[in-house]
Amino acid sequence: MCAARLLVDVHTHVYLPRYATMLRSRAAVPRIIPWTGGEERLLILDHEPSGGRPVGSQYWDREEKLKFMDRHGIDVSVVSTANPWLDFLSPTQAQEMATELNADLEEYCSTGPAIPDSTTKRLYGFGLLPLVPTVSVDALLENVKQIAAAPHLKGLIMGTRGLGKGLDDEALDPVWAAIEAAGLVIFLHPHYGVENSAFGEKENGHVLPLALGFPFETTIATTRLILSGVFDRFPDLRLLLAHSGGALPALSSRLASCIDHDPLVAARLKHDARYYVGKLYLDAVSYGPEEMGFTSEVLSRAARYKDITPSKMIANRSEGSKRMLFGTDHPFFPPLNSVEKWKSVVENLEAIEDVQGWSDADKEGVRGANAVSLFSL
Amino acid sequence: MCAARLLVDVHTHVYLPRYATMLRSRAAVPRIIPWTGGEERLLILDHEPSGGRPVGSQYWDREEKLKFMDRHGIDVSVVSTANPWLDFLSPTQAQEMATELNADLEEYCSTGPAIPDSTTKRLYGFGLLPLVPTVSVDALLENVKQIAAAPHLKGLIMGTRGLGKGLDDEALDPVWAAIEAAGLVIFLHPHYGVENSAFGEKENGHVLPLALGFPFETTIATTRLILSGVFDRFPDLRLLLAHSGGALPALSSRLASCIDHDPLVAARLKHDARYYVGKLYLDAVSYGPEEMGFTSEVLSRAARYKDITPSKMIANRSEGSKRMLFGTDHPFFPPLNSVEKWKSVVENLEAIEDVQGWSDADKEGVRGANAVSLFSL
Repeated sequence: MCAARLLVDVHTHVYLPRYATMLRSRAAVPRIIPWTGGEERLLILDHEPSGGRPVGSQYWDREEKLKFMDRHGIDVSVVSTANPWLDFLSPTQAQEMATELNADLEEYCSTGPAIPDSTTKRLYGFGLLPLVPTVSVDALLENVKQIAAAPHLKGLIMGTRGLGKGLDDEALDPVWAAIEAAGLVIFLHPHYGVENSAFGEKENGHVLPLALGFPFETTIATTRLILSGVFDRFPDLRLLLAHSGGALPALSSRLASCIDHDPLVAARLKHDARYYVGKLYLDAVSYGPEEMGFTSEVLSRAARYKDITPSKMIANRSEGSKRMLFGTDHPFFPPLNSVEKWKSVVENLEAIEDVQGWSDADKEGVRGANAVSLFSL
Repeated sequence: MCAARLLVDVHTHVYLPRYATMLRSRAAVPRIIPWTGGEERLLILDHEPSGGRPVGSQYWDREEKLKFMDRHGIDVSVVSTANPWLDFLSPTQAQEMATELNADLEEYCSTGPAIPDSTTKRLYGFGLLPLVPTVSVDALLENVKQIAAAPHLKGLIMGTRGLGKGLDDEALDPVWAAIEAAGLVIFLHPHYGVENSAFGEKENGHVLPLALGFPFETTIATTRLILSGVFDRFPDLRLLLAHSGGALPALSSRLASCIDHDPLVAARLKHDARYYVGKLYLDAVSYGPEEMGFTSEVLSRAARYKDITPSKMIANRSEGSKRMLFGTDHPFFPPLNSVEKWKSVVENLEAIEDVQGWSDADKEGVRGANAVSLFSL
């Protein structure tokens, strides 16, 4: 099989059995509770509507992941623990759980199948760091080392809280340095959204926190990283943003303008904000060809803003597409009705196909070749 | 002068003298306070950095507005009271102030200059409603009537709180009906952003609340309008969104997907969320040609989602550009250094010029002809 033809899913989640057992043992959110008919429900946000989400073997059983992959023609998945990771544990618990789950995930991948006639496995993973308040930086560095040494772990997933003060906390600098040096990819993923009061009192199910809160959280976290100079200090850090970077691409010129007009911030950064956006990788989980085409323009125009005086270079969708990677968000977003292929997956694949200005090679890149290259699969 | 050549600014603010006097009399935010050297400072958000923003005659003096217009080649401005409008007043105060300020604004426009050799004035306005908790709907309807009867008021500006429960409050239905019947344009503008704790503890000046909080607020408010069925009940409502609709265009396919997967909401709306986005008007205040080109695609693709089964129509930037309108956000975003033309204005004009796929006529439309048509100038 030709690497350029692989379909690779970089946004696909798992609750490993050890994690699910821990969630079942808990009395507070996040937790898994028994439901009628022997089923279980997952509560991951406060005030979950509909009594929580149905949760089952698709979350923890490797065979179910592989069946989902087969059904959708996905050759390789880079799986990651779903939110909220270890955020709610004590430092000691988080450290122990991170170490055990990273070992579990390496085994999940290494003992899984390979692509026929290839040494490439079908499953790779993003590990976890025990990112909770008061954990020691040494403990974090230990887990970075563990992940870097695990052949099938290609990076790590993290939320936006860091040690409790967010990702713009200088205390994390040694962690960024170690991740950068190890060449690991950080998959930045939301969980908290924004304060629920913003969404009003009407019953809108999960729509507002998921459709808006999640991307807002990713946008804020990444903007705070930019403003704190993390990308100036760690120019080779490789950050993959969930949900195509949320609203950041669309607000990046406004961000640049606001920085430019604020005496407190204007002189602090080496580059225009739009330059840093071009250092990011974005999953192609945005459900529309216009969105994908646009984000590829934003990624490519970063080159325009390398120097103080922006050039007049026209954005090149083809160039920008090289930093975009297919994802499914499985096992979230199951279709309401039983169907062969999940609508959310089909929509994202069709969107990739329909982007104006992407060549066939660009589309192959987004579907898999970019991931093969980014993760050295 | 040919109407197609007019430069029309639809996003330009004023604190009329009566409003400034009221702000000076206040002991709490929002307020205007004396500053060193006979200057004044404006405090409109809690915890303003830098002791607040310099405020002066550019906020209340019509001659200053006209000078700014002349300096930037702006023929017509549709001025609106800047946030936070009347949100902080009692119902009685808000009602009285709305009525007086609407009369003041009509006079500000009607006694101002006309375009040479034309009956078109250089100044038009968006009026105010006393949108505060416990105000009577009759009072709101009185002011809608007042605005509709004022020849130079072409619509009204509003924030996102409505009567305290947001704009998805059914209590506002008679107000939408009256505004729709009068053919007035609603200019929806943010003020509150999102909960500041999301922005962390680092000193980033105004950057995060302005660059992200503002567009997030507009996005949430408009999404709540969509979810509540306002555009199904009032299909001819004309809503102009500040800052190009914030993050809504970029998140509209994600929104559609989240609605589609949520049993509580999926069956409630007549159309795909992206259809309603095409009913909106967006100012062209997004500081980048890629952003503007993209939002014009999102506006035009709405037609694809009119029916339950989306068509394969390719987005048409030219078509979408007809719902986009130049704006400056004056007197906000003054450049840090004294210059002839404001950088923010030049950037937005250059961005319009640089959009790929807009014809010269499309660009003339965004610069002015669309506003001439929308407001019947």
